[in-house]
Amino acid sequence: MIKVVIIGSGNVAQHLISAFIKSDKIELVQAFARNKKHLTHLLDSNKITSDYNKLQEADLYIISVSDDAINEVSHQLQFSNKLVAHTSGSVAIEELSNSNRKAVFYPLQTLSKEKEVNFKEIPLCIEAQNEVDLNLLNQVATSISNKVFEVDSEQRKSLHVAAVFVSNFVNHLYKLGNDICIEHQVPFEILKPLILETANKVRVLSPNDAQTGPAKRNDTTTINKHLATLTDENQKEIYKILTKSIIDNGKKL
Amino acid sequence: MIKVVIIGSGNVAQHLISAFIKSDKIELVQAFARNKKHLTHLLDSNKITSDYNKLQEADLYIISVSDDAINEVSHQLQFSNKLVAHTSGSVAIEELSNSNRKAVFYPLQTLSKEKEVNFKEIPLCIEAQNEVDLNLLNQVATSISNKVFEVDSEQRKSLHVAAVFVSNFVNHLYKLGNDICIEHQVPFEILKPLILETANKVRVLSPNDAQTGPAKRNDTTTINKHLATLTDENQKEIYKILTKSIIDNGKKL
Repeated sequence: MIKVVIIGSGNVAQHLISAFIKSDKIELVQAFARNKKHLTHLLDSNKITSDYNKLQEADLYIISVSDDAINEVSHQLQFSNKLVAHTSGSVAIEELSNSNRKAVFYPLQTLSKEKEVNFKEIPLCIEAQNEVDLNLLNQVATSISNKVFEVDSEQRKSLHVAAVFVSNFVNHLYKLGNDICIEHQVPFEILKPLILETANKVRVLSPNDAQTGPAKRNDTTTINKHLATLTDENQKEIYKILTKSIIDNGKKL
Repeated sequence: MIKVVIIGSGNVAQHLISAFIKSDKIELVQAFARNKKHLTHLLDSNKITSDYNKLQEADLYIISVSDDAINEVSHQLQFSNKLVAHTSGSVAIEELSNSNRKAVFYPLQTLSKEKEVNFKEIPLCIEAQNEVDLNLLNQVATSISNKVFEVDSEQRKSLHVAAVFVSNFVNHLYKLGNDICIEHQVPFEILKPLILETANKVRVLSPNDAQTGPAKRNDTTTINKHLATLTDENQKEIYKILTKSIIDNGKKL
């Protein structure tokens, strides 16, 4: 059994804890939480500590805290030459303290406490500084996910930006669509199959081939009708800039 | 059996033809195509006409052509007082010729010829000008879909704009994410589970509750890192405007 300690009690930390508990190749030795209560629904309280001096022996320590706390937390660790990974998409491996062997264990998914996910389907992007550590990370990663990728810090940085486009920004467009439905008293429900099919389509078609709609057809009549329907200036501005981007892209092809 | 004639041979027309063929409540009497070859993979050629004078008797004629051709095609019909529907999200019911009874039969989905869909899951928005016609439309609609909604022309117009946001624009964001992956040589594949989960999340959470990411947290460090990573001016502009929209929305709450 590979021994793992999780440091952190947020969203990602909790999903990792749940995944490791289910794995028969990992022994989740301990978790660190400033407030133990955040984890008592997942772990026995004797497995939770809020004291860095009481962290137990493990093969891998995973720091799963907010991006700007990673460096500081890595310096709080009282031991040296252990394998220590962070879970962030946008923080370079170098930002970890030099006292320990550095690694990254980045689950690329939108994780909400309110919604369960099948961790097996979540891509895990791993990075380490030597083959032995990479091999251990790989064993830990494959024990909870079927989709493990070796990704260096530069690649991970761009992947994180791309993720913002295809997830955070996409969700915001859902929100704007929902706002329009509320304003005009039509159920957002009607749009849900469209939302799912749009996501499903790019599993089999490239996003370029999957593009449809008035901007793709350069159908200015419909575009102008839509702009006339929108009452919110912010919605109009976003409509215009995305329409222009689709039209310009069509010209490049 | 309710008799239906389809006028048109494009994307939507073909998906409707396939759906009606499978239905045991509908008799697809005939389809009109200027070029018969566009439909011979779906229908016997004796069921296809390219002559408006040869359109056969039916309970419902569905005009499924491009938006700007709907009015003209509706005037080509040589009969009167029949039930004639168009399939557009953005064209008002009034734009059909006055010679016949007007209706709308709008499937709200992104339909590509390359990708099969389960029509039963596609929301059909129907509109008619009297109860009898609405009842017939409803029978036709429920024979091919489990999701039938009565939606008037004003509501349909806003639904169509909302659909552009949650589908066409969303797909364009997938495209920009793909571009970033290609530029930095990371497989777009890694993002696909995230894309699906982002779409799945709004089945159970409101888009507002589902929002995550640096803009939601007003995390300017990460936002600035991302802007520094992006090399394309168009991508930067879209990043900025959507980030601002998410931050402004957070302030309103």
